[in-house]
Amino acid sequence: MSDFSKSTNITWHQSGIAPEERATLLGHRPALLWFTGLSGSGKSTLANGVARALHDRGVHTYVLDGDNVRHGLNKDLTFSAEDRVENIRRIGEVARLFADAGLVTMTAFISPYRDDRAQARAIVGEAFIEVYVDCDVAVCESRDPKGLYKKARAGEIGNFTGISAPYEAPENPELRIDTSTMPLEECVAQVVAYLVARGIIEERD
Amino acid sequence: MSDFSKSTNITWHQSGIAPEERATLLGHRPALLWFTGLSGSGKSTLANGVARALHDRGVHTYVLDGDNVRHGLNKDLTFSAEDRVENIRRIGEVARLFADAGLVTMTAFISPYRDDRAQARAIVGEAFIEVYVDCDVAVCESRDPKGLYKKARAGEIGNFTGISAPYEAPENPELRIDTSTMPLEECVAQVVAYLVARGIIEERD
Repeated sequence: MSDFSKSTNITWHQSGIAPEERATLLGHRPALLWFTGLSGSGKSTLANGVARALHDRGVHTYVLDGDNVRHGLNKDLTFSAEDRVENIRRIGEVARLFADAGLVTMTAFISPYRDDRAQARAIVGEAFIEVYVDCDVAVCESRDPKGLYKKARAGEIGNFTGISAPYEAPENPELRIDTSTMPLEECVAQVVAYLVARGIIEERD
Repeated sequence: MSDFSKSTNITWHQSGIAPEERATLLGHRPALLWFTGLSGSGKSTLANGVARALHDRGVHTYVLDGDNVRHGLNKDLTFSAEDRVENIRRIGEVARLFADAGLVTMTAFISPYRDDRAQARAIVGEAFIEVYVDCDVAVCESRDPKGLYKKARAGEIGNFTGISAPYEAPENPELRIDTSTMPLEECVAQVVAYLVARGIIEERD
């Protein structure tokens, strides 16, 4: 029998659970779907819709969004330029851990800057799939589910993406989903079909 | 068919995947095993051993430790008192996300201060299980897998837990595992038995 005095951390880490072992147990490969788009474009809606569709197919998922990250891990961060970068960096690092754990994970943050998203892609690695949730700002503003556009127009919120701060649209996203013209079910189906095509999840019987 | 213009983020979050649904799909309940103990006490060894034993039983696990957190999410942190608290806070927040995702997650960090561990417990909530990896400092020093005690004795590392900085042993941990007298297999078996007793994982046939 081995005991602690003969083992080292290094030896043990080498005998950790391999990605292929995780994939076999989970029944699918890992992926990190990075949803980016304007406020009101439908990032969270789409991410949660995909999570539901995948869960119902037996795929293990998790959604990282403002609800569970902004008020927890990143609650010490302000909306300064420096903290904005740190916000996306930490989300990227957590996304990497979730991908490492084998889950199909979704992040739903505006993430308006290309450099920040490029950093997240570099951190996460090959599991990273950028999903551009494309929706005209006028449509987003007409939805305004949180009343934020109204506040931005009234000058109550500064540096508001799409109104008083830029949104740098992805140039080569793995997926572009147009939420202004398609119903939600169709948007979800497009994401799921992509995961099947990539061999991340199995085709349904 | 619903479409985006009729849905709000708030509505959708309410229809997220419930903890019971995750548990049904995964085949077990979530847990966060917070391993605490001196350097060389066997935290990572034990956490990885438990992860392996659980994986082989079909339980979905993940280990958060220095290898995947210190050089990633927390790479901006120093070893100052303030950053030490922030280090444990972030690990607690990430552990909460993993528990929320339904996994049996293990953290393996010295986490020498009671207040820091209490904060982690408060963040994680009911999934939190404190595992005191109890091992005499003399035994830890004799193992010294990373050569850190040698450096601490030589004065090359300051504020070294157990040598030049305190370790505040847990007063009421859910589990205390004595790694100085028991072989690894027995230590692992004790943790697994605890999870069975708590109804987190199923008893093996």
